[in-house]
Formats: sequence, C-alpha cells, structure tokens
Amino acid sequence: MSENFRVVVDAFGGDNAPAEPVKGAVLALKAEPKLSVILTGKEELIREQLSGMDYPEDRLSIVDAREVIVTGEAPVASIQKKKDSSLVVGLQLVRKGEADAFISAGNTGSVLVGGQVIARKARGVARAPLATIIPNAEGCCLLVDSGANVDARPEHLVQFAVMGSAYMKHVMNVDSPRVALANIGVEPDKGNALTKETYALLSEREDINFIGNLEVRDIPAGGADVIVCEAFTGNVILKMYEGTVKTFLKVIKEGLMTSTRSKIGGLLIKPALKETIKAYDVNQYGGAPLLGLRGLVVKCHGNATAEIFKNAVLQCAAFIKSDIGGIISRAFASEPEEG
Amino acid sequence: MSENFRVVVDAFGGDNAPAEPVKGAVLALKAEPKLSVILTGKEELIREQLSGMDYPEDRLSIVDAREVIVTGEAPVASIQKKKDSSLVVGLQLVRKGEADAFISAGNTGSVLVGGQVIARKARGVARAPLATIIPNAEGCCLLVDSGANVDARPEHLVQFAVMGSAYMKHVMNVDSPRVALANIGVEPDKGNALTKETYALLSEREDINFIGNLEVRDIPAGGADVIVCEAFTGNVILKMYEGTVKTFLKVIKEGLMTSTRSKIGGLLIKPALKETIKAYDVNQYGGAPLLGLRGLVVKCHGNATAEIFKNAVLQCAAFIKSDIGGIISRAFASEPEEG
Repeated sequence: MSENFRVVVDAFGGDNAPAEPVKGAVLALKAEPKLSVILTGKEELIREQLSGMDYPEDRLSIVDAREVIVTGEAPVASIQKKKDSSLVVGLQLVRKGEADAFISAGNTGSVLVGGQVIARKARGVARAPLATIIPNAEGCCLLVDSGANVDARPEHLVQFAVMGSAYMKHVMNVDSPRVALANIGVEPDKGNALTKETYALLSEREDINFIGNLEVRDIPAGGADVIVCEAFTGNVILKMYEGTVKTFLKVIKEGLMTSTRSKIGGLLIKPALKETIKAYDVNQYGGAPLLGLRGLVVKCHGNATAEIFKNAVLQCAAFIKSDIGGIISRAFASEPEEG
Repeated sequence: MSENFRVVVDAFGGDNAPAEPVKGAVLALKAEPKLSVILTGKEELIREQLSGMDYPEDRLSIVDAREVIVTGEAPVASIQKKKDSSLVVGLQLVRKGEADAFISAGNTGSVLVGGQVIARKARGVARAPLATIIPNAEGCCLLVDSGANVDARPEHLVQFAVMGSAYMKHVMNVDSPRVALANIGVEPDKGNALTKETYALLSEREDINFIGNLEVRDIPAGGADVIVCEAFTGNVILKMYEGTVKTFLKVIKEGLMTSTRSKIGGLLIKPALKETIKAYDVNQYGGAPLLGLRGLVVKCHGNATAEIFKNAVLQCAAFIKSDIGGIISRAFASEPEEG
C-alpha cells in the first residue's frame, strides 16, 4: 500500500468510451489530491479528449494500448488474444505493482476473468466474487456474488460471506455486519442443495455474524448488510431489481398521463419522485469490486457516465485506505490453495 | 373430462381459512352454473361459515377431514402423517376421479409434493412444475417452474417449456407462444451449466416457438409468453418482482409525504396510481397450477382472499374446458418413465 492512490482507468471500456472514462478520471483527480490516474487505450484519442481540459498533468499519465475488447467477445479468448487491449494492459499494470487498482466499464466477462487471471486471486481465495452495493429501504447492502462465478460450491459461498463481511466492516464502516443467505424460504432446510449445505457451513463460522436465510422477497425492504448467494442467483436478483424499478416507473409515468387530474398531480410530485428514484438507482454506487484479488479490480456498468467513473475512482481510494485487500488476504492465508 | 366442473377447495388451507376459501367457493358457484364444489375440512366449522349464506345447495358438498397441515411442516412428512387432513383428503378425491381439480392456499411444499404423489404425474412427465402467470408491460406471461422442483435437469426444463407453451396456447389463447429461457445474458453460451445445456436442447425442439434467452432484466418489460427456468431461479424472479414492487411503492408513498406540494400531487394521482398498482399485482391471477398431473392441482397464495379463491375456481373450469391435462399427457405419452 503506497501513500498515494494509483488507479488505472480503462479508457476504452464501456458504451461511452473514451469520453466519459477520461472525463471521470479528470473529475476524480480534482477531488482527491493524493490520487494519480493512468489511462489505458489509444493514446492519440485519449489526448484528443484531454485537450482543452484543465487537470493536474503530473498526476495523469497514459499507457498506450492499441486493441479494444468489445461487448459479446468470449471472456477467456479476449484476454488471451488481445494482449495489447486497454483492459489487459491496464490489468498488467496492477499485476506488476505499478498501480493499486483497475477500473473498467468494458465487457463484464473479460473484466471478471482478467481480474482473476491477470491481477490474480489472493492466496487462499478459491473464487473472486463480484460485490455490488444495492439500495434498500434501510439504505444499502452488499450482494455477493452478484455475477462472477456461476455454479459455485458451498465452501466458495462461505468465503464470499467472510469477504463481504470484511468489506462492509472496513470499507462501509458497518459494525458487526449482518450476513444472510439469499433463499426462497426462511427455515434452514429451505432452498436447493447449495443453500442447505451453505447454511450449515455458515452456521459454524464464528468470524461472521450469520443471521440465517433472507427471503428474496424481503431484499428490497432490508434486513441484512451482506447478502450471500451464488453468482447466477445474485445476477438474477440484481437484474430483477433493476428491471422491475425501471419498468414500474415507466408504467407509473404512463399512468399519470391518463387524465388531466393525474397530469397535474404528476407535475406536483415530480421533485419528490425524483429523489425516490435516485435512492433506488442500482447503479448509483459507482462500481462493483471483485473481492479477494491481489490488486483491486472494479467493474462499472456498461453505460457508466463521467460521474460514475469519478465515484468509482474515489471509491478505489477508500478501498486502498481501508486496506481491504490486505485484510482479506490475511483471512484466507492459512487456507489450502485451489485452481 | 366430465361435462360439469367438479372442483375441490381445501377449506383449511391458507392464512384466511376457513372463512375466505368457503366464501370464494360460494362466489364461484354463483358465477358458473356448470360448477360443483366439494369443500374439505372440519365439517361443523365449514357449516358454521355457510350458515346464513345463500348458495346452490345441490352443487356444494362437504367431505369431512379432521386434520390441518400448517405452515412450516415438512412437506413429505405432512402428507404421510396427516392422512385425514383437508389437503390429503382433497387430493385423494382427485386421484379417485371424484373431482377434476383441487385448490389450496395451504403449505406450498405440501401442495406441491401432494400433487405429484397423490394426484400423480401424467405418464411421461418427469417433474410437475408450478406455472405462475406474472404481469408485465405487455400484459402477462407464464413463469414455469416458479417454485416446485429445485435442482431440475436440462431435460426437465425442456418439458416445462412444452407444458408452458401448451398452457399459453390452449388456456390463454396465445397463438404460437414465444418461449424463452430466463438467463443472465442473451447469447446462447451465457449463464450456468444448466442454462447452456437447456438452450441447446430447446433449440432442437420443433414443437415450440423457442426465441432464445430472455435477460432477467427485461422480464418486467415483456418479450416472451412463456419464461422457462429452474424452480429456485423462478422463485427468486417471482419474489424479487413482488418484493420490489411492494417496497418501491411504499417508498414512493413515503416520498409523497415529504412536502405539501407532493402531498397534494399524491392525492391527485391516487386513482391513476391505484390502477397501475393493480396491474402489477403478482397475485391477481388467482392460483398457479402444477402442470403435468393426472388431475388439476392449483396453489393459491397463502393470504388469498375470497375473490382470489373464486378466480382460482373459475380458472379451473377454464382449464378443464381446454383439456390442458389431456393435451399435456398426449405430448409426453411416448417419453420414457422416470422416478
């Protein structure tokens, strides 16, 4: 851990590249004086974006990378073939210790695979889960694994619980985080083979505050600080959340256009509704980190804006300050190695 | 298939038993002259509910059952031990051919196990999935399996697709129903081992209109008539849908109370909002049938009201009319038997 925060931003990842990642990096540099940013990607196009912008030149550098990994490319193949991509070059900087963190809004699968293969898992960590902060009626909670490792085994979910708990404690400052298992019932014997076995294993852990199963229906209302699940389930939870809020809001808005009365009402409630919508924006928290790596890797939503990139970069500074990476490594240092 | 519709209603299933199921049965009898209803449960308590009610006595009968299966009881054990329960007695009437359909709002696991074990699966059907109609921005679609058989295999999901397609075609009158696989990505190779294998099998079927993966995020917006998934995933989808709408609505209402302006606006939009909420009520469609049984078994939500029971009974009449049971049996008659 260096005194300064060295963050790589993949300038060619996501739908709004390179404009938004570059803008976001500059915004973050202005907000945090101890930060330095490295942008990876086609240097001349990055310089074009930067021209006319006011930023601390001594804390921003560019590492040229000529290839771009696009949406839909097979994750493993993309990492292996495009060695000169903004993504691979950026992750290599973390691997070589030239940066502390890497942020990308690019191909999710490539970021997840690249993070585990190039940045590498910490000793003792079997799988590196994606940890996404989601809003709920209490504030927010951590959903882990929200999409990295499908078909994980019970012992992997136990590691997710330990890592998620450390994250909420040390990064989000939650005292004794309540850890729950996402399930389709409350009783210990509810669910599928995976949840039943995981429940038993989690009950035995003394290093986490396991509070039992959390019914999926209750996730939006709250009740836990860390929600543990297998990645397919986690991604279904995340996407149903996002999709339901989006569609429900659209339908409400359409409903408000049905009469003059409701149109006037709609205008009056607009400011209040806007606040509510903001509170339920699944993407408001910037990026989701892959937990359990030797360096820090953060995945941003594909259509992330400059504001989101800025938040993600500043979030990295918080991660590095909290030494969450070191805490997780030490938690698993004594566990046996796995593929 | 008889000319009349003989439906058993479990008068001691659900949170509102026996008042609401009994009331619902009476409402249905008044609405459908070709219907006869058998109520199972403690006769004297059912008679107490009926006293003072006006109903066609020749079409309503009671079969006494002294035991009640309650929430939280282990499904298999409850069926085996409580042979004189309203649930087991009701299902036996279907098995013996004395009724065409059975409806219960009781212990979900017991209804699902009882349906498969007592009413029995149709020849060639490996697993009987729960098929729930869910609302979307286009109207509605069928989610199958929404909770019956966790840890199902690819070949089971293929059967769910065929049964769900038959249901939407023959019961809901959808021409060439679009069948999609619920997944966390659109491409054929997205998801977990189960979805990848299922995708390949579904692509080979010529008896259904398979349109590929449906991203879970898009479910509330629409895009498919039948959504196929494994039961754990299906239940997560259903419960996240229900929970998100419920919490989001509560939060919107609270948001509207924050200022005088929004309070007035809230009053003005109330009628329009009420319509929207009604359209997104996951429980509006009455009950969810277990597909692929020799008789018809319908599960109602635990807190079902008389109105829901009435709808479920009338829905049974529609099922029987459409001969969906016969259609499904014939579709699988040539397939090998399994457990």
